[in-house]
Amino acid sequence: MLSKNQIKYITSLSLKKFRDTEGVFVAEGVKLTGDLLSAFRCKLLLATSAHFADFNKYRAEEKLEVTEKEMERISGQKSPQGVLAVFYKSDITIDIKSIENQLSLALDDVQDPGNLGTIIRIADWFGIKDIFCSEHCADVYGQKTVQATMGALARVKVHYVQLDEFLPSVKNKIPVYGTFMNGNDIYKSTLSPNGIIVMGNEGNGISSKIESFVTEKLLIPAYPEGEATSESLNVGVATAVICAEFRRRAR
Amino acid sequence: MLSKNQIKYITSLSLKKFRDTEGVFVAEGVKLTGDLLSAFRCKLLLATSAHFADFNKYRAEEKLEVTEKEMERISGQKSPQGVLAVFYKSDITIDIKSIENQLSLALDDVQDPGNLGTIIRIADWFGIKDIFCSEHCADVYGQKTVQATMGALARVKVHYVQLDEFLPSVKNKIPVYGTFMNGNDIYKSTLSPNGIIVMGNEGNGISSKIESFVTEKLLIPAYPEGEATSESLNVGVATAVICAEFRRRAR
Repeated sequence: MLSKNQIKYITSLSLKKFRDTEGVFVAEGVKLTGDLLSAFRCKLLLATSAHFADFNKYRAEEKLEVTEKEMERISGQKSPQGVLAVFYKSDITIDIKSIENQLSLALDDVQDPGNLGTIIRIADWFGIKDIFCSEHCADVYGQKTVQATMGALARVKVHYVQLDEFLPSVKNKIPVYGTFMNGNDIYKSTLSPNGIIVMGNEGNGISSKIESFVTEKLLIPAYPEGEATSESLNVGVATAVICAEFRRRAR
Repeated sequence: MLSKNQIKYITSLSLKKFRDTEGVFVAEGVKLTGDLLSAFRCKLLLATSAHFADFNKYRAEEKLEVTEKEMERISGQKSPQGVLAVFYKSDITIDIKSIENQLSLALDDVQDPGNLGTIIRIADWFGIKDIFCSEHCADVYGQKTVQATMGALARVKVHYVQLDEFLPSVKNKIPVYGTFMNGNDIYKSTLSPNGIIVMGNEGNGISSKIESFVTEKLLIPAYPEGEATSESLNVGVATAVICAEFRRRAR
């Protein structure tokens, strides 16, 4: 049975300040929890009777079988899926030599948790190992983001940095790409197999401070060019189109 | 001032059955309402004093200035933006000759309203004029979808059809594409400038019934190929990557 303190502890983790103090985050669901168990140290693993036997094989500091009622009390999901775990955040270090030899993403204030989760999933699909988030980005350990990653968080490293310090440190070594309405058609541009692709905020795009560190401005052209269309693509969608094109060239 | 009946009428339109009986839908926001006013006949246009003068130039069967309190009562948004309109749905006919000469989308039970809205916005960006939805797709006139289209609904026609009747009627004339885990690498496939691209349900992909009408199976390859990654891309993201590649070839 879950103690009152455990219930209080788990529900407190919906707030960033408690996740930060404790250095942990929550994930839910059979598939997602299973994926993350292979990548993060587990502090507490809870499962209903339907799932407990399956999950008992995994390592966790504490494992408990809970009732469906208890699961409903602690779950952040509309329809709890019977498995919830508290994981320790990883200590993620930036390996600057690897960064220089690969393609990475940088996010300038991407604030919607769902968008951040989608972008992590896209990064995973396209073999991008590191994402550099500005400090005003959504919290990757917030539950909405964790759930939206669909387990990609097990394979993609998300770093929170001062982008205006990080980008200058790499921009003389590798190209820094960004999308702008006045950028060059991505399909007519030279794309390097290594570099950083900066994606901007949902409403404002890339800030002028960060724009100054972008060495190659790109544009995803609408079709047919010049016709009245939606003013922009959603940031997740734009990230996908850009990553797909970089990877197509690298094949 | 809004009458009780008007308030009741507008809030009733959050339900599909009332939208269907009345043949109308609701949109909110300065930009979105402005975009849709150019494309749909407006039954009722409501704006707070901050916006009423700007919107008074548009044609609508009825226009009313409302208080912010009244707007809050009728708005489906967390932060009402001061403009709300009830539009008549358009009578949309399928012009089969145009369809044969262009690229269109077909959605096999895309059920999330946000995904449907995102796909309409992507279609607009990539100059796709017609989307064929199976009858179990989300309702394009639901408020979440309307808002997510960001005005693209003014330019993209969404048809609800029996896909298993519609696709056989075109599949001998134009290619029908669909994405499958066992499809051919899209980057190594011949892509026609006209045809139908079928996108599948969020959880189950393209149903086996609809699969039988697909003439060309495609795959968006992960990078690097064969490495463990996320199992799939979100349907909106996949739609964007595919449409971008079709349009790149057509340039």
